[in-house]
Amino acid sequence: MPVGRSGGGAATTRGLALDTIRAARTISRVELAAGLGLTSPAITRIVRDLLVEGLVRETGRGPSTGGKPRTLLQINPTSRYGVGVHLERNTCVIVVADLAGQPVCRAVLPGAAHVPPERMLPRLADEIHALLAETGVNKTAVVGLGLVTYGPQDWRSGVLLTPQPNPQWLDYPVAERMAELVRLPVLLDNDANAAAIGEYWLGTVDLTSTYGCIYLGTGIGGGVVVAGEVYRGSSANAVEIGHISIDVDGAPCTCGNTGCLERSAGPEAVVRQAWKTSNLARRLGLDPKGRDQQGGDFLVDFSKITTAAGSGDPIAKSLVERSARYLGGAAVTLTNLFDLDFIVLAGPGFGSAASIYQSIIQTEVDRRWFSRRAHPVGVVPSANGSDAAAIGGAVLILQRELVRP
Amino acid sequence: MPVGRSGGGAATTRGLALDTIRAARTISRVELAAGLGLTSPAITRIVRDLLVEGLVRETGRGPSTGGKPRTLLQINPTSRYGVGVHLERNTCVIVVADLAGQPVCRAVLPGAAHVPPERMLPRLADEIHALLAETGVNKTAVVGLGLVTYGPQDWRSGVLLTPQPNPQWLDYPVAERMAELVRLPVLLDNDANAAAIGEYWLGTVDLTSTYGCIYLGTGIGGGVVVAGEVYRGSSANAVEIGHISIDVDGAPCTCGNTGCLERSAGPEAVVRQAWKTSNLARRLGLDPKGRDQQGGDFLVDFSKITTAAGSGDPIAKSLVERSARYLGGAAVTLTNLFDLDFIVLAGPGFGSAASIYQSIIQTEVDRRWFSRRAHPVGVVPSANGSDAAAIGGAVLILQRELVRP
Repeated sequence: MPVGRSGGGAATTRGLALDTIRAARTISRVELAAGLGLTSPAITRIVRDLLVEGLVRETGRGPSTGGKPRTLLQINPTSRYGVGVHLERNTCVIVVADLAGQPVCRAVLPGAAHVPPERMLPRLADEIHALLAETGVNKTAVVGLGLVTYGPQDWRSGVLLTPQPNPQWLDYPVAERMAELVRLPVLLDNDANAAAIGEYWLGTVDLTSTYGCIYLGTGIGGGVVVAGEVYRGSSANAVEIGHISIDVDGAPCTCGNTGCLERSAGPEAVVRQAWKTSNLARRLGLDPKGRDQQGGDFLVDFSKITTAAGSGDPIAKSLVERSARYLGGAAVTLTNLFDLDFIVLAGPGFGSAASIYQSIIQTEVDRRWFSRRAHPVGVVPSANGSDAAAIGGAVLILQRELVRP
Repeated sequence: MPVGRSGGGAATTRGLALDTIRAARTISRVELAAGLGLTSPAITRIVRDLLVEGLVRETGRGPSTGGKPRTLLQINPTSRYGVGVHLERNTCVIVVADLAGQPVCRAVLPGAAHVPPERMLPRLADEIHALLAETGVNKTAVVGLGLVTYGPQDWRSGVLLTPQPNPQWLDYPVAERMAELVRLPVLLDNDANAAAIGEYWLGTVDLTSTYGCIYLGTGIGGGVVVAGEVYRGSSANAVEIGHISIDVDGAPCTCGNTGCLERSAGPEAVVRQAWKTSNLARRLGLDPKGRDQQGGDFLVDFSKITTAAGSGDPIAKSLVERSARYLGGAAVTLTNLFDLDFIVLAGPGFGSAASIYQSIIQTEVDRRWFSRRAHPVGVVPSANGSDAAAIGGAVLILQRELVRP
């Protein structure tokens, strides 16, 4: 009985019940009914169905409140699985996550920089089938696959609206073709959205929270989650924080905008600055030649710089701090526009410099957020580490198939 | 039967039915049931209640589709009214709007720049009672009052979290005190949110649209509406677009941020630039003295500049065009983050230069929006003119009392 017109998939009552049980870890039927504002017979009926389907199980008893002790419910993590695939230029991470959002296995393939979809997608399908066989996950328990990558995308048709990682991917029916290959429901989504919802699903986030995610990979992405649902806007191409202008007179970006955050604060920008600092480039063994041939991924050199910064190298540190201040300014924009409870930092880019980024972004938000009299805004690292996007892909399909159809 | 946890007031099924009838102008029960995904008996019951309460009326018959012609429903505009009050430093606009969101009367008072709330609120209450008496609106048909002004605010308690228009307003229980004085439900909200939702209520906006509003008054505000609901975030202090940084190395703003849009593109910034252009200042009779004594409102001189720009004065025009380009960049940020279907320009600031602003902002969005391959984003003037915020205040209370309790 969905009520709502957002088009982003309103939760069903049954879905909300499952989501509430998942988030609570253990909960009684009485608490569940109270939390959802439903009658006792309605909850009894919904829970019975969830038990029959094996999604939920009974587990011991809670403390008595006078009458007989209450049977507690919890989700059955191994009853369903989602596959998450994070496709990037130079790497492709595959995870299988259980119903609790915990990864049970993982594989890494070379990315799609120079591979057309006709070759890449069968490779992915083979790897997924091998991974499921290896780990003994029964395919009938797999609800589907969430394939996550950059935007813009046509979310409804599962097609990329950008000639990345190479022109053969533009307008190719990625989701449809992948669904034929793996014989599972497939959704295509944005990697930063995925990282954001993965955090929610882990159960560390309050069900009513509004929070943002800044994803630092090859580029800079963003996602916002409102009460357990990814904010989508008109066409699910929202929160492209890497392409907001932070400098009205800045350089043109390939996206069409000027002075984009990514051009000043992203891995490529930091690496290019480091290359110019010959002393640093030599000391860290950076490679001003050759990177572009490996698909334009600057994460290898960027990781050397963030590691050096984390170890206290003053020149590397000053480059990372500059990037962090720009990201801090963008985090203020994100907060001033979305009024967030907190911001999650996710993605491999933060790597060894995560604490530098976290500290500077927190300082900027504390100092500059418009409504700081209303409430504080925390800046926290992702609980899902550098696989946050792939895990989130698995979570997105679990959510779509079980909570928000 | 609200389903949802956003805290922003999920629509009831009855509320959605009323909202759908309002937006459709005329609709049959069959169409209404189909639109809401409800059974025929459920719709019959809901419509009966709406008819009994007088909110809806039957009006003629639609074309027959084989059987007997269908009775059409429409809202009864004069069955309920909302009062909207837009409080600013130098002016305070009061409107009474009917259930269709159409203003039936209007009054203007001096603003609150130098007046404490203890004196201002009784003045407002007297004026509202006089206005209702004059126009013959029965107070029993008035559902409440929406008082809209700047942020940050504590939306739930109805208290301002800013020492504006003067320090006596900070932490004063504005909504509670006003409710005692007018003996009506009162909500306090942001003026740009109000302008945004006023547009929706007029029935010109598709029920599922996601759109933004840029409000140009003394400052620059913003609002976003998703499927008929104001986007609120954690504490209803979202979309403070006047205080996003457009220049990473810009001047500090009183809000704590640096390089804020308002400091470069708002009325005060344009007026200060005009004052420096002595030829223009003399020609337009601008008043570099005296303005600050009148409450820091730069709208009088700004209006002279926009009028001159609209009439083709090249110097005035170049100042307005610069402001419009900055607003265009901010509109791109708003679109890249919220993925909007369209953007409404509202507020008295646009005045005689509305077409210059609209044209330049549209050009910037067309050229720079990240996902322009997904869909176009239109830039349109508000249908509610310069009273958009006050009318929106009335709409917000109608919506809260009748659609989203």
